[in-house]
Amino acid sequence: MTGATEPLFEGLKILDFTRALAGPTCTRMFAEMGADVIKVESAPNGDLTRQMSKIRNDRSLYYIQQNLGKQSLCVNLRDPRGIALMKELVPHMDVVVENFKPGRMASMGLDYEALKELKEDIILCSISAMGQTGPLATKPGYDYIAQAYTGVTSMIGDPNDAPSIPLLGIGDVATGVHGAFAVLAAIYHRERTGRGQHLDVALADVYYHCHEVNVHQYTGSNGEIKPTRGGRHMSYVCPAGVFRANGGDIMIMAFLHHFKDLCAAMDRPELVTKEGWTTDQERLARLDEVVALVETWLQTFPSHWDAIAKMEEHGVPVAPILTVEDTITHPHLLHRGTIRTINDRLAGEFGIPGMPIKFSEFPEDLPLEADTLGQHNAHIITEVLNHSEEELAQLRADGILNEGEF
Amino acid sequence: MTGATEPLFEGLKILDFTRALAGPTCTRMFAEMGADVIKVESAPNGDLTRQMSKIRNDRSLYYIQQNLGKQSLCVNLRDPRGIALMKELVPHMDVVVENFKPGRMASMGLDYEALKELKEDIILCSISAMGQTGPLATKPGYDYIAQAYTGVTSMIGDPNDAPSIPLLGIGDVATGVHGAFAVLAAIYHRERTGRGQHLDVALADVYYHCHEVNVHQYTGSNGEIKPTRGGRHMSYVCPAGVFRANGGDIMIMAFLHHFKDLCAAMDRPELVTKEGWTTDQERLARLDEVVALVETWLQTFPSHWDAIAKMEEHGVPVAPILTVEDTITHPHLLHRGTIRTINDRLAGEFGIPGMPIKFSEFPEDLPLEADTLGQHNAHIITEVLNHSEEELAQLRADGILNEGEF
Repeated sequence: MTGATEPLFEGLKILDFTRALAGPTCTRMFAEMGADVIKVESAPNGDLTRQMSKIRNDRSLYYIQQNLGKQSLCVNLRDPRGIALMKELVPHMDVVVENFKPGRMASMGLDYEALKELKEDIILCSISAMGQTGPLATKPGYDYIAQAYTGVTSMIGDPNDAPSIPLLGIGDVATGVHGAFAVLAAIYHRERTGRGQHLDVALADVYYHCHEVNVHQYTGSNGEIKPTRGGRHMSYVCPAGVFRANGGDIMIMAFLHHFKDLCAAMDRPELVTKEGWTTDQERLARLDEVVALVETWLQTFPSHWDAIAKMEEHGVPVAPILTVEDTITHPHLLHRGTIRTINDRLAGEFGIPGMPIKFSEFPEDLPLEADTLGQHNAHIITEVLNHSEEELAQLRADGILNEGEF
Repeated sequence: MTGATEPLFEGLKILDFTRALAGPTCTRMFAEMGADVIKVESAPNGDLTRQMSKIRNDRSLYYIQQNLGKQSLCVNLRDPRGIALMKELVPHMDVVVENFKPGRMASMGLDYEALKELKEDIILCSISAMGQTGPLATKPGYDYIAQAYTGVTSMIGDPNDAPSIPLLGIGDVATGVHGAFAVLAAIYHRERTGRGQHLDVALADVYYHCHEVNVHQYTGSNGEIKPTRGGRHMSYVCPAGVFRANGGDIMIMAFLHHFKDLCAAMDRPELVTKEGWTTDQERLARLDEVVALVETWLQTFPSHWDAIAKMEEHGVPVAPILTVEDTITHPHLLHRGTIRTINDRLAGEFGIPGMPIKFSEFPEDLPLEADTLGQHNAHIITEVLNHSEEELAQLRADGILNEGEF
């Protein structure tokens, strides 16, 4: 039994071949809760995100955000001696996570069958855009490529114009957490059976998972319902969506029984029973009229905050549409640690999204830092793998290992 | 040790108080892999999604999609006898999952402290829009409300107009899977320490987790960079986004080194080194010009498919923007089971998103069905709780239990 303050994943060992976003999100969930995560970065330059968001002191804020608490091992993966080091490490590991283009692990001699020979019960989690199998498996691994192929992009934006793309890493982050779930499920299984396995986690599958009604409505209606984007309004209930007001936009969810709450707020109780206005379907048929009515009413308030307060009095589900700037100082998000301030020894103090899960047994964040490139090279080569200082020096001299200032 | 074909979560027992989407997505991840999930539905009508997507035979396709393999127990939670049954069930359980409005579990006498008295090592996973704590904790639990409060909506849509909302359950689904990860992490911890815990999983935290660069760019630049939406184009690399072509829109990711691939496809190699065009930053500064150039070239193809083929020849990351309709018959998505056809005894055959993770040890879906309302009432009352047939009849007669045809 471990003590109450010992981190949740203390002792769990992960060899992490991931870069960019989806893979690092997966291993972040473990590193931030105390697992030993060795992040393998390709020499000479490592994770390409080390070149992104270098806003301060040549240090990548992007890298820091996704890689707190991971141990950087920067090694030449195009050299047999680099691969040999990886094979030496595998028997020390519980889990290997990678998000190379499918086929790359095999070309390095590190596919699941090879790993299994090195450690019989190893768990390999492979994360990719379109998955390890199928005709599109080797498509380039960008979030928006998978988003386009899965009908997701088609559901975002003005229906009379090209679709819009969300400027966040929604698919990558969700895929990383699906991967983290998969890893724990495989560990759960291994503890009961002694067997490892290979996990195939794809952005395409994860994005498709997000189709709430679209897939069953299209297939269930035998193609009669053709789901498409609706701009700023929902397409199957009404009123529900973004409404413009003085000073800002407002999210209003006044469908079903909430329509009467909105009518009460607007002091228009007669609308609740007015012919052609009583159901969501009827209101959808006159969407423009409904939106005009609500927005005309919203214009009577000097500010959208007053309109929000009025609707809240009447129990209408409503929210201001905050900018990222607004969120940084929002009392609720600060209270919960949704936004978390970190202090990096090279980049100083700045904000990142906090751990998205609150564990009652581990209420505090660990005081983690992000490694500079290859910062843990010496530790891993000499302490974990028991090579000599001379061998370490030789590996460095031969460019098998590399280290950087940032 | 269990056999190879025994489902991954065989024997794991979950008491599931969830409704709608985020909560049911969490418990779906367990039910589809063989856990015993008892879905508690409030009598008389149960999960409100039983009223949604009733496209065939009064059977909700929505309910089926989210609740395959769960055992429906429909019980009056406003009656002390209903609550007493819940308290009887808890000692049989490993995990309780709920997504009521914060405070509702306590008002039923089923908050974490109460559950812990019934079973010392119980794990409670609470899923909500804004979290269990903080000034906005009791906000109504809709995906778009959390999306608006976290700056996510502000990052989607035309920068000169109101934001758009994605017509999918992205936040709900991602939150459900964050919850499933949290449950397994708590089980992992319990197996090592004997202790349970309370998990607080919020849409707001999960949505915030999706901010790839926005939070660190705003805070790291001391407010100089103010992230906002960019319509159909990315705002920090270029060209990257949605481009219009004959017959359909195309997602093109031709930033960084991929710009030269696009120039090769366009037979414009001189652009790679042309002054003012060589870096993403320079191209962003002339975004309109870049888009016009690419779209003029796309117009030279009779169909967007030809343009895609040409770009693929040159290694440009590119994808057609498929509609939901297009996805249903797509060979890659069918090959992987990304879309899965199920056959419901009441609603017949239709498609839903498949299990988003592929486990090598469990390649096949279990042949699961969704329960009708209260279908497992009798089993749970008489077999799990060992009440008599007479007691069961009395509970039914008194409206403590309810059953429905669909």
